[in-house]
Amino acid sequence: MTDDDLLDELLGDARSEIDSIDDQILNLLERRARVVARVGEVKKANNLPVFHPAREEDLIYNRRREAAKLALSPEMVEDIFRTIMRSSRIKQTKTMAQKCVMPGAKVLVVGGAGAMGRLIHGWFSAAGYDVCILESDDWGMVEEKAAGVDLAILSVPIHNTGEVAERLAPHLAQDAILADVTSTKSEPMERMLGAHPGPVLGLHPMFGPTTDSLDKQIVVVSPGRDPEGCQWVVEQLAAWGAVTVAASAREHDEVMDVVQGLRHFATFAFGQFLSKRKISLQRTLEFSSPIYRLELDMVGRLFAQDPTLYADIIFSTPERLELLRGYVESLEDNINMLKEGDVGTFMEEFAKVAEWFGPFSDQAIRESSYLIEKMIERF
Amino acid sequence: MTDDDLLDELLGDARSEIDSIDDQILNLLERRARVVARVGEVKKANNLPVFHPAREEDLIYNRRREAAKLALSPEMVEDIFRTIMRSSRIKQTKTMAQKCVMPGAKVLVVGGAGAMGRLIHGWFSAAGYDVCILESDDWGMVEEKAAGVDLAILSVPIHNTGEVAERLAPHLAQDAILADVTSTKSEPMERMLGAHPGPVLGLHPMFGPTTDSLDKQIVVVSPGRDPEGCQWVVEQLAAWGAVTVAASAREHDEVMDVVQGLRHFATFAFGQFLSKRKISLQRTLEFSSPIYRLELDMVGRLFAQDPTLYADIIFSTPERLELLRGYVESLEDNINMLKEGDVGTFMEEFAKVAEWFGPFSDQAIRESSYLIEKMIERF
Repeated sequence: MTDDDLLDELLGDARSEIDSIDDQILNLLERRARVVARVGEVKKANNLPVFHPAREEDLIYNRRREAAKLALSPEMVEDIFRTIMRSSRIKQTKTMAQKCVMPGAKVLVVGGAGAMGRLIHGWFSAAGYDVCILESDDWGMVEEKAAGVDLAILSVPIHNTGEVAERLAPHLAQDAILADVTSTKSEPMERMLGAHPGPVLGLHPMFGPTTDSLDKQIVVVSPGRDPEGCQWVVEQLAAWGAVTVAASAREHDEVMDVVQGLRHFATFAFGQFLSKRKISLQRTLEFSSPIYRLELDMVGRLFAQDPTLYADIIFSTPERLELLRGYVESLEDNINMLKEGDVGTFMEEFAKVAEWFGPFSDQAIRESSYLIEKMIERF
Repeated sequence: MTDDDLLDELLGDARSEIDSIDDQILNLLERRARVVARVGEVKKANNLPVFHPAREEDLIYNRRREAAKLALSPEMVEDIFRTIMRSSRIKQTKTMAQKCVMPGAKVLVVGGAGAMGRLIHGWFSAAGYDVCILESDDWGMVEEKAAGVDLAILSVPIHNTGEVAERLAPHLAQDAILADVTSTKSEPMERMLGAHPGPVLGLHPMFGPTTDSLDKQIVVVSPGRDPEGCQWVVEQLAAWGAVTVAASAREHDEVMDVVQGLRHFATFAFGQFLSKRKISLQRTLEFSSPIYRLELDMVGRLFAQDPTLYADIIFSTPERLELLRGYVESLEDNINMLKEGDVGTFMEEFAKVAEWFGPFSDQAIRESSYLIEKMIERF
């Protein structure tokens, strides 16, 4: 008799009982989903936001307290209800996708056949806007397509954005909004401002084209000209569930030098090095802690995506190159420290950096521990 | 009337209904936990493993199918039941902590007052072994403490392991197992083998001292001498829920050059660079995608831990230094490529690396997308 057979015999009854309990849980989840759908309709009809953080935190607090009374793990119960609420929000956000802040407005997506362009086109179409697309081989029709447009969104590679803005702007009405979605803002916005005398808005959606819900996704918004005239676009993003963060083009670019430039450069170089050394990914994964697996996932993720996107980000501005040079120089300094076996300097540096990270470290431990837990749970 | 008041009025009934459904779910979870506890007792009494992958996958498969029938998201339902099962396993693993594979054996933990040593001491004590500790200031009592020991585990810094093995070995019985838990294996094991003529076992637990359950945690096991004599230790780890992976000391070290050496070096240098440039962590987090947040969490996590651990890993062997030098050189090559604006080479390199990653990329996208989802859900 194998272990499995033995288990089956000994545990058969208990398993049927578990199956029956789980059935009841599923039925309750289904009833819950119906109530939530009703809530979604009420919110939509009354122009109320999908995400109501105070109510959610309150709910979690109460469920944890109940869990403790029942000798259940509050951590497990919080996880379960966060999962349920996120799923509810995504469903409600889909309902809200139809919400239109500026009914009747005409939207032009330039580069609308690209991955990001298609996504943008999809959002505005679902909300009932009159959306059309202009591709590089349609320029003959620019006059016709740009006529009566209220919002023109440029979804083209960074290095084309300025030029495309200059070609398009003369065909736009003075009060039309000209916006872009590139991942650097200073130069494209300067050229948009120079080309178009009306409202200008810089957008940077902080997510890739595979994202299927805007729920809690971040969009950086850089004011260009006439913020009031542009306000409905920001409100439309919020109505879809996105979180908008305002920043000047310059601040945006400085932050992105690190968040995108440095990070993607380091990730690219790491993956490239693993491949050059022909490291056995499989074997490293078998041996590894969940953190390594998580980090390797980040590297593999980059190489599964469109290289032109990363080329745009890494070959960007002279400031960005300067930052990356500084980074590599600091690595060279560290190699010298290692060559000299200078453990003392390492310990000092470590202490300084740890102090600089300060209270963020606690957050980092908490968040990464949670994700490691989820990784072990799932994979 | 504010938005909140309006919501309260319109949605009050729906909320009470949700609260009542959630109460019922919690009660079912409590009943389920009781059934699972009964299963745990049966497993323990019959020496059956806690983790039964086939049963778990089967359960998930069925729950997903039921979910689809009820128009619930199968993804959400899988998440919920994985959370429930992981929590059950951790509870059962705690029950199994009392399981003793070699009753009556005497265990000596050298360095047992350190963080890892305390953890090891805790496991063996909970299982009913006769455990004692030897610290550096106890060497006067070595004769007495080593007498009759069946398993001596060295939990001291890498660079002391060889020396400690040599001092301890003469006091051990010929058939006692000498084991270590350092993060490199070749040199410590060579010295343990030289010092002790009996069974020798290299262990490398792939998790930190804050881990509170061995469930699904990886321990690399390097055979030294007399694997049969050492087998009970490996079985004991498995009984506690750990996953043991066998590898020669040499292979272990090669893999760890990447998994620990390169990774921790790169993470250290990244954090150090952020602090030198005084980058605003807060602002980068406000702007950033969940991936950046996740990566920054990994960096913050490192600096929240014991620097001596990382010094040991980074200042390790000449082979490791050579690997790190190669890595920094490859970064320098990339900087030259950027300076020359050589996008063509970047695209070629990217394509080569992407091909090398091959099917792992799909796994990476799947796993990282799941974790990003969890990140958005929770934080």
